[in-house]
Amino acid sequence: MSSSPDIETGRRKLAWARAHMPVHAELRRRYGETRPFAGLTIAVCSHIEAKTGVFVETLAAAGAEVVFTGSEPGSSQDDVVAALNAQDGISGYAERGVSEERLLELHLAALEHGPDLILDDAAELTACLVHRRPELLQGLRGMCEQTTTGVQRMQAMAREGAVKFPAYAVNDTPMKHEFDNIHGTGESSLTNLLLTTNLLLAGKQVVVAGYGDCGQGIAHKARALGAQVTVTEIEPRQALRAHMAGFRVTAMAEAAAWGEIFITTTGNREVIRAEHFERMRDGALLANAGHFNVEIDARALAEMAVAREEVRPGIEAFRLNDGRELHLVAEGRLVNLATPTAMGHPVEVMDQTFAMQFMAALHLYQHADELTPGVHAVPDLVDRQVAEIKLQTLGIGIDALTESQQRFLDTWRVEEIKG
Amino acid sequence: MSSSPDIETGRRKLAWARAHMPVHAELRRRYGETRPFAGLTIAVCSHIEAKTGVFVETLAAAGAEVVFTGSEPGSSQDDVVAALNAQDGISGYAERGVSEERLLELHLAALEHGPDLILDDAAELTACLVHRRPELLQGLRGMCEQTTTGVQRMQAMAREGAVKFPAYAVNDTPMKHEFDNIHGTGESSLTNLLLTTNLLLAGKQVVVAGYGDCGQGIAHKARALGAQVTVTEIEPRQALRAHMAGFRVTAMAEAAAWGEIFITTTGNREVIRAEHFERMRDGALLANAGHFNVEIDARALAEMAVAREEVRPGIEAFRLNDGRELHLVAEGRLVNLATPTAMGHPVEVMDQTFAMQFMAALHLYQHADELTPGVHAVPDLVDRQVAEIKLQTLGIGIDALTESQQRFLDTWRVEEIKG
Amino acid sequence: MSSSPDIETGRRKLAWARAHMPVHAELRRRYGETRPFAGLTIAVCSHIEAKTGVFVETLAAAGAEVVFTGSEPGSSQDDVVAALNAQDGISGYAERGVSEERLLELHLAALEHGPDLILDDAAELTACLVHRRPELLQGLRGMCEQTTTGVQRMQAMAREGAVKFPAYAVNDTPMKHEFDNIHGTGESSLTNLLLTTNLLLAGKQVVVAGYGDCGQGIAHKARALGAQVTVTEIEPRQALRAHMAGFRVTAMAEAAAWGEIFITTTGNREVIRAEHFERMRDGALLANAGHFNVEIDARALAEMAVAREEVRPGIEAFRLNDGRELHLVAEGRLVNLATPTAMGHPVEVMDQTFAMQFMAALHLYQHADELTPGVHAVPDLVDRQVAEIKLQTLGIGIDALTESQQRFLDTWRVEEIKG
Amino acid sequence: MSSSPDIETGRRKLAWARAHMPVHAELRRRYGETRPFAGLTIAVCSHIEAKTGVFVETLAAAGAEVVFTGSEPGSSQDDVVAALNAQDGISGYAERGVSEERLLELHLAALEHGPDLILDDAAELTACLVHRRPELLQGLRGMCEQTTTGVQRMQAMAREGAVKFPAYAVNDTPMKHEFDNIHGTGESSLTNLLLTTNLLLAGKQVVVAGYGDCGQGIAHKARALGAQVTVTEIEPRQALRAHMAGFRVTAMAEAAAWGEIFITTTGNREVIRAEHFERMRDGALLANAGHFNVEIDARALAEMAVAREEVRPGIEAFRLNDGRELHLVAEGRLVNLATPTAMGHPVEVMDQTFAMQFMAALHLYQHADELTPGVHAVPDLVDRQVAEIKLQTLGIGIDALTESQQRFLDTWRVEEIKG
Repeated sequence: MSSSPDIETGRRKLAWARAHMPVHAELRRRYGETRPFAGLTIAVCSHIEAKTGVFVETLAAAGAEVVFTGSEPGSSQDDVVAALNAQDGISGYAERGVSEERLLELHLAALEHGPDLILDDAAELTACLVHRRPELLQGLRGMCEQTTTGVQRMQAMAREGAVKFPAYAVNDTPMKHEFDNIHGTGESSLTNLLLTTNLLLAGKQVVVAGYGDCGQGIAHKARALGAQVTVTEIEPRQALRAHMAGFRVTAMAEAAAWGEIFITTTGNREVIRAEHFERMRDGALLANAGHFNVEIDARALAEMAVAREEVRPGIEAFRLNDGRELHLVAEGRLVNLATPTAMGHPVEVMDQTFAMQFMAALHLYQHADELTPGVHAVPDLVDRQVAEIKLQTLGIGIDALTESQQRFLDTWRVEEIKG
Repeated sequence: MSSSPDIETGRRKLAWARAHMPVHAELRRRYGETRPFAGLTIAVCSHIEAKTGVFVETLAAAGAEVVFTGSEPGSSQDDVVAALNAQDGISGYAERGVSEERLLELHLAALEHGPDLILDDAAELTACLVHRRPELLQGLRGMCEQTTTGVQRMQAMAREGAVKFPAYAVNDTPMKHEFDNIHGTGESSLTNLLLTTNLLLAGKQVVVAGYGDCGQGIAHKARALGAQVTVTEIEPRQALRAHMAGFRVTAMAEAAAWGEIFITTTGNREVIRAEHFERMRDGALLANAGHFNVEIDARALAEMAVAREEVRPGIEAFRLNDGRELHLVAEGRLVNLATPTAMGHPVEVMDQTFAMQFMAALHLYQHADELTPGVHAVPDLVDRQVAEIKLQTLGIGIDALTESQQRFLDTWRVEEIKG
Repeated sequence: MSSSPDIETGRRKLAWARAHMPVHAELRRRYGETRPFAGLTIAVCSHIEAKTGVFVETLAAAGAEVVFTGSEPGSSQDDVVAALNAQDGISGYAERGVSEERLLELHLAALEHGPDLILDDAAELTACLVHRRPELLQGLRGMCEQTTTGVQRMQAMAREGAVKFPAYAVNDTPMKHEFDNIHGTGESSLTNLLLTTNLLLAGKQVVVAGYGDCGQGIAHKARALGAQVTVTEIEPRQALRAHMAGFRVTAMAEAAAWGEIFITTTGNREVIRAEHFERMRDGALLANAGHFNVEIDARALAEMAVAREEVRPGIEAFRLNDGRELHLVAEGRLVNLATPTAMGHPVEVMDQTFAMQFMAALHLYQHADELTPGVHAVPDLVDRQVAEIKLQTLGIGIDALTESQQRFLDTWRVEEIKG
Repeated sequence: MSSSPDIETGRRKLAWARAHMPVHAELRRRYGETRPFAGLTIAVCSHIEAKTGVFVETLAAAGAEVVFTGSEPGSSQDDVVAALNAQDGISGYAERGVSEERLLELHLAALEHGPDLILDDAAELTACLVHRRPELLQGLRGMCEQTTTGVQRMQAMAREGAVKFPAYAVNDTPMKHEFDNIHGTGESSLTNLLLTTNLLLAGKQVVVAGYGDCGQGIAHKARALGAQVTVTEIEPRQALRAHMAGFRVTAMAEAAAWGEIFITTTGNREVIRAEHFERMRDGALLANAGHFNVEIDARALAEMAVAREEVRPGIEAFRLNDGRELHLVAEGRLVNLATPTAMGHPVEVMDQTFAMQFMAALHLYQHADELTPGVHAVPDLVDRQVAEIKLQTLGIGIDALTESQQRFLDTWRVEEIKG
């Protein structure tokens, strides 16, 4: 089949990503010959763009039949989808800018392949399978989930007894959430917000809702760029962490009055709502860095508004009846994915995150018999293994415990310690 | 004349900028009725996009006939140009994506209006006037220059005796260079670089050439985002400043070997050249944040290359004969202006920078008789005035000297001091 | 009994600490009347200075008979000991500047009181009890341990089956280790090092061994003050964390060559040893922020030295046979405790840490019947409770989950999420 | 003469300082043989402790007869004074803990030597000479002043026509004020404050009065350690700088209400005064980092107080009639010099500052005939020279301009620039 120009663009994007994903290069080197996934069908649900593409390719190189589908209506790229579909062992169901109905159709189409493993984002495909194709569940050996939101959702599902297969909470591994959330979400949320608005961060009053990994990343990086950052939280330890790190900490009802930029990262809904809109300054910018577009209560905002207008690509102004305008970025969807020029997480971050999915999937498959149904932590050694590969690609050598030191860690008698 | 859709887009861009340029709003309030520029023709040479547009409008509101033209082949936006040209008292000569020849024609067309004042960027229009239309010089009452590069150039011109009119080095005012260079260039260079590459800054080896205001802004903000930053300099005090701020400082010949991202900010040429390309790592990114595209010796790079390819919009790969690829961003042009999605400085920064141009122009015009030909510092009170307006728009109140404190500053006798 | 002047100084120190320990004030308010520890003997082993004194007083106010003893030969203060011993319900065995033998005698004297609970530091008193007075073990209802080192030691003890009582790993609670280690050790190690040496941190090459909480605190704060910081680690994830935070990461054998200041925080021994001393620069400073004075191999250094001299209070120079001098701070003991002017952790940090000990002890006592022998995590609600008290004393109000948000966290069905 | 033990301690202090003052080592190497100051009497007025001692020694090594005297009643150290006085070519008049009257006597004794040059601190000795020994003025060839306060004072003196000799404003050189003020004052003010109080900076509300170099140093370093920093200013540009750097900026009357720690750095008097004390929180700490003890209005505080007590060495509590206590550190004297364990600036900072004094004195002496009476800027080449020596001692090599680059800086014609 001759390549369409579209495919060429997709291939170029894949090549750029591939060149900056050294951990995946190492995975292909290690598993390209042994092909440990041979005979398995693996479903990948995520934002189908170049980085996910390299992940998909790497799974295929390790022997899997890969079927992919998009996790969001707006985040997949047709040229990358085309370039992937042109490869052996890969078939995909993803389109850019689809309706929720069409997204569902695509998910169902992917599920028709009867995947052995689902490598999921926000538990989208797994929830679809459990909810709408329970009859296919028996073929499923397990799933791996890479987002905070998805793990929460899997746990909610488990509380209802609906998780009848082992699930690995890949998001909860240090190698995933500390790097992807802190650095990936942190950097890309801010750069996308700044590019979409052409505004300056230095000197701005920024309110970050939530001080989990994503919130910490955004709060620290925003301050580092010169913003005055206020943090809101519902958890007292997180609130204190933020306080001790030098942030102003208060309730949203108070912060609403002074913020110029609001960024939500909580994984919960209606974090900014009517009572807060009431108090905001004219021109306040509202952006979301959490998975779902529910953190900012856009419905309430629309009801309060006397007029709405797209004042800039990716920014909608809601005019309130007292003349104030509030500016909602990307409809409250992920600011690092849904703004006009967004490209999601940086490549290196996804190299690491998808490597965790890869290694967790491999471990789950190889130990599926030992694993009970339900949500499990990924064994620490898998996480450690990915870290070692990453350090190797960076050329960083670290210390090893000497025998004497190992013995020291095993003792508690004072003579031996102070000896 | 009915608006074309193009004009509508331009108007929307102008509206967004206007809403985030409170200092200009205050200037229009103060000078909209008194119209102190009435009767004058003012030529504005800059990147003609929304922020410059608001500046142009504000000059017009203050009574001037404004003629504008673009300072760079690629940085003007046709929709904004159209929206400006549709306004009374404004006529412009700017087009996006022109050749150097066409740019010259546009400059000459602007000069045909016989400006009383030139408000310039990189001294482009002034140099053109002096060099090619010396006969029009007699009508010129003065010029104001807003860039480091332009001031250097005006001073070089003055050393040759070619500056026969007063020129204000607006760039050298604290209100301009500290904010525009440190925060404007600092933020926007990094955000544009990250969005163009989709790469992560955290953990990267970044080499910043030059530790002037632009270099400081970039170096500090890059480190704040998690990069390991090395600084190169030619000035020993600047080098020590960087050292004491915790940066690694070394010669480029050494830093070339470990950098992953290089950003030039020196205002000089060939800062990164063949001897450095020789030593670089495969995949090194080369970007420029200085005014002219001469800091990275792209000609030498092209000569060394066995192949070139655009691997991503705005990024060209140069393959060397040993297999390494070096990646040049935006042809070595300003990374915050010339990348595909770039929008130049943040709005608030230009609000302040153009307000300095406005107030310096007003001062120059009102004191032209007292000023000798040559390059002059802008009087400090003008700078202070803009600062006061800016603080006012931010709602920040500061302390005033008490009488007792004023007296204290005027004394030196120990009894009075320790009294 | 009339107060000796000594006691007066001790009382003044206690008053200052008390005024800056608002969490303890709240504990006295809450438990001063109900006296939940009435009838219990509680042994406190720690550095007996003002902050520990306020903790001891607070336990007594809550009804306990308190017996205290010092955890280190050099860290107790006689005036504070005297002021405490003058109070009802408190008896102590601590002296400043004792030998290891005398320290043991003091520990044994404390144990003679037959404590119901031990609130320990580095498991010193507990190890002494287990090792030397096993016959007293039967009266022990449990212990709480506040240091990383002590928890490691308790776990080593548990692996040998020697922990026949419940032990709470108070150190491992977020409220303890994140604040005490990151902020307490971080700040006070640097301030004490700088005051002891009168040297500047800005521009220095600092090598931090270990990137646990203590190491992170020191590394980030040292960089924030202008140092160039290199991190060494044995754990790949920690190494990557440091890398992504912008630190240089390498093996000690390499860092040894460029460091000007070395600070160990690993909890292990011989982290800096002969092979490293060999490569160090003349004048390198060696300091330890880990619990035991074993991290820097002072014995090996002494063997390598041709001469030793105290060049400054708290700093000993070891002259090597090639003429280089290495400077050991405080004999390799805790730099924030053992230097001449050191006062240990800041007051606010110990307010929080000791509040965790207090609340963990209360919880352990009230649930001793349910707890099996061995090392246990402190229940999260205890940690949360201390955080809530701390926020209350800071006057910080935070958000609460709405009902709608609580429901959201409990769901996983897409219609309900996106609903 | 046999050394008293006192002298031995002084010698040890000098040895430690000497070992960490590599720029002075280089000055001794360069000028130890040529002895350019031979035949001159140089009076040094400063805090006479080890670092000043090395400066005094180095002047003597370069040929001068040096007479020294203390600049403050409490900041000289008797053992260092003794160790210096035991050296050839050095005679000194300084004692620790003297009254203002005794300080004056010591100054007059030093002036009796009829100095050719005065190297001054806060213009203390020069003001004394001008005011009380005008008859000795004719022998004075000039003076060099190293503090902001001293330069202000010299300028006030010059406005009255009282400066009848050339004076170099050494403080105003980049090599002095940027390093000494930002890093020296910045670090040592915070470390001394923290050690004196044993309090934690992380999470604290810190108010910094003044955003000059000292204020910037303190504000940035305090925030870097986790404080929430508010800045007050009287100068609008400085206020904006602070705002853009992410600090909260407001008037002192407002900040007074929320600050927990106040640090003054303005060089003016009564910056914190009765109207501010009225609004402060119970327990607020008041510290000064400016030269004179006039920034905090201690007289007004004493008048408002119903009781005063030293609650801790170096900290006096003032109890107000509403029960609040305000805590004044070191009587409002320099917090990095006047607290009980203070040692002033770090050694490396004074190495650079005194090297500026040395080189400025040499330049002034060698060009005294060309210099008119009055306050002069130190020629830039002197500053540059010290920077080059410092870089050399650090082993840092920097880039040099190529010929092509030098030409570029000299041109302004577009063909040559873009050529």
